[in-house]
Amino acid sequence: MSEQELETRLAFVRTFAQTSPYYKSMGMTLAEAGDGHAVLRVEIQAQHLNADGIVHGGVLPAIADGAMGNALRTIAGEGSQVFTAEVNLQYLRPVTGGTLLADGRVVKSGRRLSFAEVEIRDEASGKVHARATGVFVIEAGD
Amino acid sequence: MSEQELETRLAFVRTFAQTSPYYKSMGMTLAEAGDGHAVLRVEIQAQHLNADGIVHGGVLPAIADGAMGNALRTIAGEGSQVFTAEVNLQYLRPVTGGTLLADGRVVKSGRRLSFAEVEIRDEASGKVHARATGVFVIEAGD
Amino acid sequence: MSEQELETRLAFVRTFAQTSPYYKSMGMTLAEAGDGHAVLRVEIQAQHLNADGIVHGGVLPAIADGAMGNALRTIAGEGSQVFTAEVNLQYLRPVTGGTLLADGRVVKSGRRLSFAEVEIRDEASGKVHARATGVFVIEAGD
Amino acid sequence: MSEQELETRLAFVRTFAQTSPYYKSMGMTLAEAGDGHAVLRVEIQAQHLNADGIVHGGVLPAIADGAMGNALRTIAGEGSQVFTAEVNLQYLRPVTGGTLLADGRVVKSGRRLSFAEVEIRDEASGKVHARATGVFVIEAGD
Repeated sequence: MSEQELETRLAFVRTFAQTSPYYKSMGMTLAEAGDGHAVLRVEIQAQHLNADGIVHGGVLPAIADGAMGNALRTIAGEGSQVFTAEVNLQYLRPVTGGTLLADGRVVKSGRRLSFAEVEIRDEASGKVHARATGVFVIEAGD
Repeated sequence: MSEQELETRLAFVRTFAQTSPYYKSMGMTLAEAGDGHAVLRVEIQAQHLNADGIVHGGVLPAIADGAMGNALRTIAGEGSQVFTAEVNLQYLRPVTGGTLLADGRVVKSGRRLSFAEVEIRDEASGKVHARATGVFVIEAGD
Repeated sequence: MSEQELETRLAFVRTFAQTSPYYKSMGMTLAEAGDGHAVLRVEIQAQHLNADGIVHGGVLPAIADGAMGNALRTIAGEGSQVFTAEVNLQYLRPVTGGTLLADGRVVKSGRRLSFAEVEIRDEASGKVHARATGVFVIEAGD
Repeated sequence: MSEQELETRLAFVRTFAQTSPYYKSMGMTLAEAGDGHAVLRVEIQAQHLNADGIVHGGVLPAIADGAMGNALRTIAGEGSQVFTAEVNLQYLRPVTGGTLLADGRVVKSGRRLSFAEVEIRDEASGKVHARATGVFVIEAGD
């Protein structure tokens, strides 16, 4: 892949993240994107909490899936669609606040299946709060 | 467990769901709660979509986790905290709209670990879009 | 699918189980097979144990994978190959002996991906010791 | 932990692996053990194969679970019991032969739950064939 091609793909990923309504409603932004790699950032706010003040268990899979999906989009090219088939997430430490980074990476991308992983850590302390893996199917664009 | 005790627990679950900021921001409501069982409802709206018009992969784990967590709260009692240790979700069919029901059920609740499962289906068609299982730790309330 | 076709498929599954070296070395046999459904049986013996007398954590995924794979083979037809992409297993109760049945069932079989689930229970008591789900890719035979 | 203590723990792990009937029946041996880390080796033989010549899907979870369990035993101390609560395994490439190394590592070990991960690669080529994560409960020895 030429640098030009990579840049076109990364531009696709950036636009995807900027125009996804879900990203906006969740407060997620794309912090970084490279070849087979994408990082999402989300600042924990009141809207992410449960009634007991702990971040809802659904917030971490959301940014995990987003980071893995975008990591795959950096290699899939414009117009492609990334479908999640399965995600497995381990919650290592509860989250109560701060800013989270979800660091997604392509593990293997094959003809039929693609595999990715992600680590979610606190931006300030670097502590890892969750890790996830996923199986994906990519439908090529035009 | 007496009927009175069950009613107290279900009232705790209903209040929990009604007062969780995350439920409000995601448009999730508690549709049903019984002994070891809870159903969440979410009407898919623009805020749940990706840039390509498909529901973001993070929406389903969110309602999956919520339904399993509340199913566990119906047996855990007031003031208890339910921590997700691990969630595994299979995406059977992409979601593009409609209203989803997440039907959560306790599989086994032990001293150290609890297990739950959930099925996510379209309310109108009954089609199953996703299934998940989870491992949880419950910290007792007072 | 005609009854004749189903019978041909079930015969393929029975032969597969009877001639797989791994089944023999693990003491697994096919107890039952129907349309989208297969049950494996394994009698726990010394060879399945850890040094502390508990069944090794690898025994349950082995029969889980076998039961799901054969459930898929009943619908995939002769000569097809079933590749496991991902398996997730929950250990509900440790196993120390007895005879286990692994009851596998196809959840959804699509063009690109297939999903299955399995419940592992003690044959005598009916107690469920483990549950698993899996994602599979089927390559058609001739 | 003093060097003396670590050595006592590693001796416990080595004895555990050498005396487990399941290790013997599966042809698994402990190749390496350190603080929070253990590597299992298995040479693929006829007994690990399916009728179609591909390694059975149950072989990889077996060595995955073994490597993670022993990694945890290196920090858990003599007489402790490691119970698997959940395992998730991704099959990146089918295995047809060769010698596999399962490289297990403790991710986090807490009071109630422990997390581990493992990578399974071909010893000769270094190619990664599978990756797994697991949730465990450790019961302390005397």
